[in-house]
Order: sequence, then C-alpha cells, then structure tokens
Amino acid sequence: MFKVDLNSDLGESFGNYKIGLDEEVIKYVTSVNVACGWHAGDAEVMENTIKTAKENGVAIGAHPGFPDLIGFGRRNLSVSPGEMKAYIKYQLGALMAFAKAEGEKIQHVKPHGAMYNMAAKDLTLATAIAEAIYEVDKDIILLGLANSELTRAGEQVGLKVANEVFADRAYNSDGTLVARSKKGSVIHDADVAISRVIKMVKEGKVTAITGEDVNINAQSICVHGDNPDAVKFVKEIRRRLQEEEIEIASISNFIK
Amino acid sequence: MFKVDLNSDLGESFGNYKIGLDEEVIKYVTSVNVACGWHAGDAEVMENTIKTAKENGVAIGAHPGFPDLIGFGRRNLSVSPGEMKAYIKYQLGALMAFAKAEGEKIQHVKPHGAMYNMAAKDLTLATAIAEAIYEVDKDIILLGLANSELTRAGEQVGLKVANEVFADRAYNSDGTLVARSKKGSVIHDADVAISRVIKMVKEGKVTAITGEDVNINAQSICVHGDNPDAVKFVKEIRRRLQEEEIEIASISNFIK
Amino acid sequence: MFKVDLNSDLGESFGNYKIGLDEEVIKYVTSVNVACGWHAGDAEVMENTIKTAKENGVAIGAHPGFPDLIGFGRRNLSVSPGEMKAYIKYQLGALMAFAKAEGEKIQHVKPHGAMYNMAAKDLTLATAIAEAIYEVDKDIILLGLANSELTRAGEQVGLKVANEVFADRAYNSDGTLVARSKKGSVIHDADVAISRVIKMVKEGKVTAITGEDVNINAQSICVHGDNPDAVKFVKEIRRRLQEEEIEIASISNFIK
Amino acid sequence: MFKVDLNSDLGESFGNYKIGLDEEVIKYVTSVNVACGWHAGDAEVMENTIKTAKENGVAIGAHPGFPDLIGFGRRNLSVSPGEMKAYIKYQLGALMAFAKAEGEKIQHVKPHGAMYNMAAKDLTLATAIAEAIYEVDKDIILLGLANSELTRAGEQVGLKVANEVFADRAYNSDGTLVARSKKGSVIHDADVAISRVIKMVKEGKVTAITGEDVNINAQSICVHGDNPDAVKFVKEIRRRLQEEEIEIASISNFIK
Repeated sequence: MFKVDLNSDLGESFGNYKIGLDEEVIKYVTSVNVACGWHAGDAEVMENTIKTAKENGVAIGAHPGFPDLIGFGRRNLSVSPGEMKAYIKYQLGALMAFAKAEGEKIQHVKPHGAMYNMAAKDLTLATAIAEAIYEVDKDIILLGLANSELTRAGEQVGLKVANEVFADRAYNSDGTLVARSKKGSVIHDADVAISRVIKMVKEGKVTAITGEDVNINAQSICVHGDNPDAVKFVKEIRRRLQEEEIEIASISNFIK
Repeated sequence: MFKVDLNSDLGESFGNYKIGLDEEVIKYVTSVNVACGWHAGDAEVMENTIKTAKENGVAIGAHPGFPDLIGFGRRNLSVSPGEMKAYIKYQLGALMAFAKAEGEKIQHVKPHGAMYNMAAKDLTLATAIAEAIYEVDKDIILLGLANSELTRAGEQVGLKVANEVFADRAYNSDGTLVARSKKGSVIHDADVAISRVIKMVKEGKVTAITGEDVNINAQSICVHGDNPDAVKFVKEIRRRLQEEEIEIASISNFIK
Repeated sequence: MFKVDLNSDLGESFGNYKIGLDEEVIKYVTSVNVACGWHAGDAEVMENTIKTAKENGVAIGAHPGFPDLIGFGRRNLSVSPGEMKAYIKYQLGALMAFAKAEGEKIQHVKPHGAMYNMAAKDLTLATAIAEAIYEVDKDIILLGLANSELTRAGEQVGLKVANEVFADRAYNSDGTLVARSKKGSVIHDADVAISRVIKMVKEGKVTAITGEDVNINAQSICVHGDNPDAVKFVKEIRRRLQEEEIEIASISNFIK
Repeated sequence: MFKVDLNSDLGESFGNYKIGLDEEVIKYVTSVNVACGWHAGDAEVMENTIKTAKENGVAIGAHPGFPDLIGFGRRNLSVSPGEMKAYIKYQLGALMAFAKAEGEKIQHVKPHGAMYNMAAKDLTLATAIAEAIYEVDKDIILLGLANSELTRAGEQVGLKVANEVFADRAYNSDGTLVARSKKGSVIHDADVAISRVIKMVKEGKVTAITGEDVNINAQSICVHGDNPDAVKFVKEIRRRLQEEEIEIASISNFIK
C-alpha cells in the first residue's frame, strides 16, 4: 500500500504575536515541525505546541532556523559549518526537553526557510546539519527537500531520511524546485496540485516544467495552516489521498 | 570524611566577546555551570565548553538565566511561573543536546544571577524552576543558595538538592546572605573567607554578622574565574581544603 | 472651549507578525504612540507607521519600552536610572530619524507598558525618562499617567507635560489608577466609561472607587485599535465628545 | 597641503562585555565610527562613546551593521533594499539622539562589516544606504571603500563621499581590495604598509598586487584599537604622516 506523510510548520507564534491556525491544521496532518525560538516560536509556545501535538497524536519534529526573528528565518545568513552544527544542536535540544517533559520523542528535524534552502544546495552546510542531528540522536529522521544536497548529506552521514515534496511547486528536469522568481514556479490550481502529488506518491514521478517526467521520492507533503484557505486545501488533499487508497501516516511508520 | 564541591560559572563568552579564564579555572573546580545562551554564552561557546569540561573531567551543570544579554541576566524580570518553567526547560534542553553529543550528562542546574536571587526568596518561582528540572530529568541535582526557598522548593518537588555557600559573603542570623548593599556584606580577607568555608564544611556552621553561629549546609562552594586574582584564590582555597583533609569532589559523588 | 487628545499605540507589528488595526484606528485619533523596535515594532514597521501617520495628519509620538520582545514590554525589569536614560534616548532617536526623513516632528514621548507603570510610581526612574527627553529635545511633550510621578518628574525637569486618562479604569481617592488585580478596577460599560471621560475633561474630576470626586487633569485619552470592538469604541467616544462640544485635537495644540 | 583622516571603530563593547582600547586609540585618530547597538555596542556604551569622542575632540560617525550580534555583523545577510534603508535610518537616528544630547553632530556614516562589504559590490544595496542617509540628513558624509559601489552610490545620490583605504591590504588592478582568502592579501610589514599609505595620499596611487600602479583616492585611513600592537601602529602611522607633512584632520575639514 502507498503511504505518505502530511507535515506542517507549527508553533510560530511569539510572545504577544499569534500566527497560524495550529489547532485547526493539526487535525489533518501526521507530522508537525515545531519552531524552536530562533526564527519563530518562544519557550512557552514550544511547550504548548508539544502538548497540542501529543493530544492530537501527531509526530513531532524540530524546525530549527537562523537567529533572525525580524526576517522570520527567511533570509540567507552566511554561517560557517561549525556555527550551523551548533545552531542545530541547540534548537533540537531545546525542543527535546519539552518533548521529554511530556513523555514524547522527536521524530524528525526539518530545517526552516533560508536554512532549508541553503542546505538544499550546499553539501557542506547540509552535512553540518546531518552531523549535528546524528551526534545528538542518530535515530532522528532528517526531513529535507527531495533530490537535494540535504537529503544526500543525511544519507551519507547515516541518518534515516525522508523526502519532502511540494504540491504547489513546479520542478526542474533535474528534480529540483523551480525558483519562485521564475514564471510558472507556483501551481495555483488545487486540483492540478493534488493530482501531481498523487502521481509523485504512486509513480515516484513528477512532470517537470520542461515537459518530461522525472523521478521523485515523495514521503512527506508540506502543507500550511496560515489561513482558512490553506486549511481547506489540507482537508481536500487528505480526502483525495484517501480516495486513492494512499495511507496517510507519520514518516516514522514507513521510513527505515 | 568531609566532602565539598567547588563550582564555577563557565562559558560566558558570546560571539566575538571573550570573558572568563575558563581554561585556567576549570583545572581547580569539580563542577561547572555552563551559560545557556540567554544571559551569556552562545551555541558554539556551549559546545566548546562542554568539550573542555569533558577533557578536564569536571561535572557539567546548566546555568540558565533571564533573556537579558544586555544586563547579563543580573536584572530582575517579573516573569510568571509558567514563563520561568518554560525558560528553564528550554535552556536545560539546549545544553543537554551538546552534552549528549559528547556522551556527557548534566549533573545539575544552577540558575544564574537575578533568576537565582529571585528564586532564593520566592517559593512560587523556585517551585517553577524545580518542577521544570524534575519534568525534564528527575535525576538532575538542583544547586541553590543554602537556606533559601530555591533549595526548599527542590526538596518539596522531589529533586536531589545541593546547598551552595559563598566564601566571601557575610550571613544573617537566619542563614541568608547579607545584602550586598549593606556594610560588611563582603569579606575581603582571603584567609578569613577560607577559614569560614572550612568551618561551614566541617561544623555545618557559619558565624553570622550578628555574632552568633548559625546552621548552614555547605555542599558546594562558588568560586570565580573572571581574573587572575580569582583563579589564585581558587588554587588557595583548594590547597587549604586539602590541608584540612576535606575531599574535593563533584556533588553527584556525595549528594543522595 | 474644552479640548482633548485621543492617543493610540501603533506600529506594534514585527517582521512577519502583524497586529493592530492601525489603518482603521488612525482615522479617529489625534496622536499616535509609535513602538520603537524594542518591545514591539521593527525598523520597517516604524518607517511605514510614520508614513501612515503623516498621511492621516496625526501627531507622532515615540513609544519606547523595555528590551523585552517576548514579554511585549509588559514585564518589570530592574533597570538603573542610567540604563533607563540611555534606553529612552536610543529609541526616541531611532524614531526621530524616520520622522525627519518624512519631514515630520516628534510631538511627544509616552513610555510603554512596564516602563510606563514603573515610572508612574518611581520618581527616580521617571526623572531619568524626563531628563533623557529634555536632553534630546526640550520641546518634546512627555505624555504620562495623570497624577503620577512620571508627569511630576516631567514638570520638574522642565518639559511640557500632558496628562493621560483611561476611560475604562477606576481611580483611587488619590487620583491614581486602581490596580488591575482589584475588583472593580475595569469599567466594562462603554456609556459609563465615556460619561466619566466627559466629566474628567469638562470638570477636571473623576469619581473615585471610594465614591468621592477627585481632581484629575485629562489632556489625552488612551484608546485602542487591537480589534474591531476597540475601534468601534473609539468612534463612539469621538462622537460623544463632539456632541459635548469638546474639541478633539493633538496635545501640541493646547499644551503649553 | 596633503590631508588625510584617521578613522577607527569604537564603542563595540556590549553590556558586561568589554572590547577595544577605546580610551587609548581615540587620542590618535580624527574620526570614530560608533557601533549602534545591532552588531555591537549598546545604548549606554553609545552614550559613553559619544561623551569620550566629545572630550577628545574627534569627529563622530555612525557605524551601522546587520542585526547579528552573535556574528558581530560580519556575516552576509540577504536583506532587501527596503530593509537596508530602514536599518540605516534606525541606527543612525539612535546615535544622533546621543550626539544631540551632547551638543554634537554626526559627521559621517560608515557601514560595518558584512554590510560594508556587500554594499561595496552591490549598487542596489549601496544606493539604499546612501538614500537612507540622504533622507535623514543630506549633510552627513558617506565613508566607504575607495573604488567601490558604495562610494559610487553616495555620489549618485548627492551625498558628500569620503574614500577609505586600508594600510595593510593589497589591491587589485581595478582598485578593489584583494579578497582576504587570497595569498598576499594582507601586508604584514608595518613600514611597507605605511609607505603605501603615504603614496596613496600624496600621489593618489597604489601598487596593485599585479605590479602596476592604479588610481586610488585616499581620504581616510582605517586603523584599529583592538590590542596594544594595533594602538602602537596607529601612533607610528601618525608619526610618519606628520613627518611627511601630511595634515591629519577629520574628513569634514577637507571633503566638500
């Protein structure tokens, strides 16, 4: 039977600032990526998010980012591999303490924003991330962009790796994402987007922007809970996946 | 045989800013309190400090503080018990990850500066700290001011507790510290200071500023490594303790 | 003719985090207090808020707070007078640059949250704030709680001072605010609240929680724009003040 | 008569962290670049540095940097031109308030670290910086790397511009700095370094790493005060410049 994970970024509120329909979207996903207080989230938000995840029975992942709250972790920062490694350990550890206090485990680490994008293209930084996770707990899964340096580094370092795909993004003929700055990079039709995801899961292929089918390993689909429309899309993708008899389960259930 | 621990705050450098003779003072102490990146320290400094502690065979403690780098965690901040609890878990967890990566364990938690002082007098905040530690790992020792609400809270919550004393500070007749703002609060003569410590360890008593002897439980002595004179004092106190056949050992060796 | 100012806190968004119905509430007030990037707001938000204020023809004030974004500046921090003075100058200066770039002036300074509350009761801190403003620009008005140490300090230092009142708060017989923790401290009936404000403006009196009338100088009324109900209240208070032929104007128009 | 300015970065201490021999080096320079609290410095340090500059009669410049205290502003951050503009205004304004309180003016702005380096090569970011300064105060001088996009942008925007040169750095044949990563990029011999500076000032030429002389406009020489050796070098360069009858004066004295 085909299996896939639905993951969403959660716990991005900070102090007096509330964002994300966390309580809504968590009902429809199987894994959550919890912000660790650097690009978003704060200690109390992390604690509450872990509790919410536990109540909803979803798997918990750390979502570390750059120390850039103003930029929400979306701006490239020229860190050294040593800095990257220490940044991952710090944030992962902080979240582990909240999980441990609730009797929960960390299933995976998915870097956030600019950290994710930089690591997708830079094997040195990607390796630093993978090594940091491995040194802290080698059983934690690295969730990264399919066909990227990040998942490659994870495999080389000896981690279990899960490949993430995007329903609403176009792909190049080498299996990488079409840059957002390019025309046609975002797929706006929900039906088309969902059909593409089903093909990725069932056939392991995606039709590239250049027309040909390319290989892609789709183990987790990134969905959003920022606004009511996003949540509606999550419900719809869930319904369609079930219709196709694709089992929706957290990645630890089928990644080895 | 009498036993006592010597503890010192380490890992307080931050980015380009270096402070503390960490490499020097670590040779003479048995436990170190490692800053966790909020009032001092950063992720790389934490990683390096854990490595240094491991190399020197000293026990590692977390030294969490308020999110106040400008004030070095020395300014009171009116946090709620819930915030306090989350702040302890976050910082403790971050340090645990670095320790785990080196195959090391966290022996104790000692709150820093204003957090330490506020918790010494406020049972509600002290309980929040103790509960946070207990929920993350109930085997971690709480290191707090002797005769304070903090050690009291630790005992009530069910943690192992270590009482900290200060060689260079005067005590009130109720066993609490004389406020720094008062005359005679600081003992400047090193010989007098060391003799007082020896009495605390051997007799469990300290002569209060009012003249009478009061009970005090001295399991760990706080020493400093900020400057060459401080390090000289640590060497001297070490020499004198050994002369008195007091065994210097990390608290986990004799706290039950 | 009676005159009064309506002021509201604006520019509290930060990076990816949006709060406040700034564009709505600004239509109904005469002065705005702009967050300066420490407890809320960031550089771009400040720039945009100044532009919005200019477009709407409202007077601009600086709204400095403690360096505590997690706590939104609402937590007491034990700063020294020297720190307070430097914190005010820094934040006021930052906002002045954005104002200057738009050809605008800073009308007033109103400290935020815990800074406002601490200064209302502590003459030393209040004096530090007043001196900071005076040294940067002695023509800037200090907007503070009526009957407080803050307005007192402003007068002593030689600043022009505007007294702020709260429509929805009960007052003690000495003219200070009833603490939020006490029963009856908040007035929930909008009509009652507005009638009290009208009496404050026209008669210079407010009925204390103990029943007697006490003197109060009401030059500016604090209103909010956090939510649609708050904006509705601002429209209503505006309507009622005009009905009473009280002129609504920014404080610089009638403070000397 | 030939004239040149000696500038140094000052006020880089932060809270409990002290760095730089500010009191020493300030005796030998004519302009200081004061950190503005983002990559280094804090509000009290800024206030004190302005006072020290005033006492020593040196010209004051703002030294804005990226919001990256951990990285000391030395790491590239992919900011937008709008963010850059707002960051300059904010930091410049903050420093202006401290200067105004002491009756002093801001002579110049020199971006720090990664901000300086990125702007040297990126005309869009450089223009954002120049426009920010111009909008706040068009009489402030922009101090930037000679032969860079930053000085070019300053001229285009209509600012007065001062060209900065480095005594201890090699230059390419197009007048730009040889990257630090390349062999021969740093000149270690103090005498050679000083002779090169004298040639730059007197002849407007520097011998490139490729052997030929290239044009360079040397109006300000960057010197350091981090350590005793650096201060010794400043004294020596000062002595040699005077020997050559080059007048050492702050840039506002000869830039038009």
